[in-house]
Amino acid sequence: MQLKQAKPWQVSHWLNTKNPITLENLLGKVVLLEVFQMLCPGCVSHALPQAMRVAQAFNAADIAVIGLHSVFEHHSAQGSKEALSAFLREYKIDFPVGIDAPATSGRLPQTMTSYGLQGTPTTILIDRRGNLRKQKFGFENDLVLGAEIMSLILESKESFNQTSPSGCDDIGCAIPTE
Amino acid sequence: MQLKQAKPWQVSHWLNTKNPITLENLLGKVVLLEVFQMLCPGCVSHALPQAMRVAQAFNAADIAVIGLHSVFEHHSAQGSKEALSAFLREYKIDFPVGIDAPATSGRLPQTMTSYGLQGTPTTILIDRRGNLRKQKFGFENDLVLGAEIMSLILESKESFNQTSPSGCDDIGCAIPTE
Amino acid sequence: MQLKQAKPWQVSHWLNTKNPITLENLLGKVVLLEVFQMLCPGCVSHALPQAMRVAQAFNAADIAVIGLHSVFEHHSAQGSKEALSAFLREYKIDFPVGIDAPATSGRLPQTMTSYGLQGTPTTILIDRRGNLRKQKFGFENDLVLGAEIMSLILESKESFNQTSPSGCDDIGCAIPTE
Amino acid sequence: MQLKQAKPWQVSHWLNTKNPITLENLLGKVVLLEVFQMLCPGCVSHALPQAMRVAQAFNAADIAVIGLHSVFEHHSAQGSKEALSAFLREYKIDFPVGIDAPATSGRLPQTMTSYGLQGTPTTILIDRRGNLRKQKFGFENDLVLGAEIMSLILESKESFNQTSPSGCDDIGCAIPTE
Repeated sequence: MQLKQAKPWQVSHWLNTKNPITLENLLGKVVLLEVFQMLCPGCVSHALPQAMRVAQAFNAADIAVIGLHSVFEHHSAQGSKEALSAFLREYKIDFPVGIDAPATSGRLPQTMTSYGLQGTPTTILIDRRGNLRKQKFGFENDLVLGAEIMSLILESKESFNQTSPSGCDDIGCAIPTE
Repeated sequence: MQLKQAKPWQVSHWLNTKNPITLENLLGKVVLLEVFQMLCPGCVSHALPQAMRVAQAFNAADIAVIGLHSVFEHHSAQGSKEALSAFLREYKIDFPVGIDAPATSGRLPQTMTSYGLQGTPTTILIDRRGNLRKQKFGFENDLVLGAEIMSLILESKESFNQTSPSGCDDIGCAIPTE
Repeated sequence: MQLKQAKPWQVSHWLNTKNPITLENLLGKVVLLEVFQMLCPGCVSHALPQAMRVAQAFNAADIAVIGLHSVFEHHSAQGSKEALSAFLREYKIDFPVGIDAPATSGRLPQTMTSYGLQGTPTTILIDRRGNLRKQKFGFENDLVLGAEIMSLILESKESFNQTSPSGCDDIGCAIPTE
Repeated sequence: MQLKQAKPWQVSHWLNTKNPITLENLLGKVVLLEVFQMLCPGCVSHALPQAMRVAQAFNAADIAVIGLHSVFEHHSAQGSKEALSAFLREYKIDFPVGIDAPATSGRLPQTMTSYGLQGTPTTILIDRRGNLRKQKFGFENDLVLGAEIMSLILESKESFNQTSPSGCDDIGCAIPTE
């Protein structure tokens, strides 16, 4: 399987973190990116609680759980930083959440467009080397998700250090492949 | 037991109904008034689904299910008609919902204050003659709520018909308000 | 609606009660009779927990919750008093349970046959005067069941007191069966 | 970590399989052994459905899901092959289930004693080389269990072939370590 690098995120604001988070920052860790909307019932009842369980079940040194608020409808109702901030506090969600940057033209926010998402919730897994490994619209059951995450966690860090096809690692910066 | 008339509601906007709804309009029916906030997790996961089950289980000729959005925190996030409207659409809530009128002074909206509510969710039952019969903060189980509703439904319409128009009850007749 | 008396039960053994229980003993109370089999998954996960909730939600002076173990398959596995007794203890079911008397001929136990049951679970409601008022195969939701029970509880005891002992109802007086 | 071989099972009868199953048969696969009793509510509502989800979520070439019916109470009610067979059919459990051999003396069945189990349900994981890797009384959540299973699945089969410290593998039989 030819792996592809996950695309960078376009985030207009971050909550629950002092500094913006980039995929480059997270190289070396597995990343669970949960794409949601605060007024999406399936996100509220299933996907976000599952992301919280992941954050609790695994070691933070192995996996980073990140939310991405990708609003593609009801912009006035759920589009503000204040509304999202209140939502996160009421639902006791404490992992970092980025607000997907609004489109300069069109309805869909920028990251949602660049990832080609079908809707919310979408669960995305990115491996230690920054490759996109899973992108699933709708629900995944806990057994399967737990197994997939562990499979990515167990991928050798050494292989990451040696082979990271582009970008920087602990040792230095490789010339990116064309 | 000395029964008391339920106090009138102060509502700034109504959704899911063309005309404003008053307690007087509803005389003759049992009323379930579900007081909630759209960012209150217990409201979203328990109280509102229960109110929807009530609307489905009972005959609309016997009981009116009404929501009251009483925002006492995160006003900028959940205070607008647009936010609430989007919420109702996403959660497929189709019974009438009033927005509790903001306080002219203080933090709590007006109906929340006049009813002395402790928070959300609060489930309120009003009998066919407009008397306040139950006001419970938190959850009630379905068996008990079903039983209480039926108990109010079975109260004689005759006694309502005789005594209500002129403001009479078992004890006496009050001078009707204009 | 012409009401019919519930037929007597044929029970070979009783558990969780010192004395056998008959419908006549229960005149004056509403009766919830839960017909089940200990190896019926829907009984174990839904109907029996619901019957336990009913026993807890209502006043024992108003309603009697009774189980009837009507075995129509796997007789060697679930047919014995010992097996049922162990089951009741493990599931902490403490209301009285009768074992439906085995058929003298045929596969179905006697009460199951005389009531014309379709299977398990079946929830049966009998009013204060011994009339069969509900017989439902499968599940009933808590709101509806709570409402139905309350409706029967609120039926006048006076009408029972006047008419029951001699087999009278609203329409007339039947000659009591010997 | 010094790993220990899982002890052999003592089984008096097998259901849902034509041939008895031994740990030696299963070398090369991960094994989930679910120890239960048919009248144990936690087994029925949680552990057995979880074992069924495992059997469905993973590849049968990687993991074998096996039940062990270890009766330590209510022997007359749940001790028979017929009772267990009826239970498995009603609950649609189709993985192989062994009946833990009754003790020659004492109350606990033989495998329960040799494994030092605390009760039911107990979830046991055995690796591809026959080592006992997890033995947990009570519940494990799906995320953690999925991760643990995947971790064992990903352990190299080669390492199994080369290093299996005792016993037989595809190639031959090694002299067991003392």
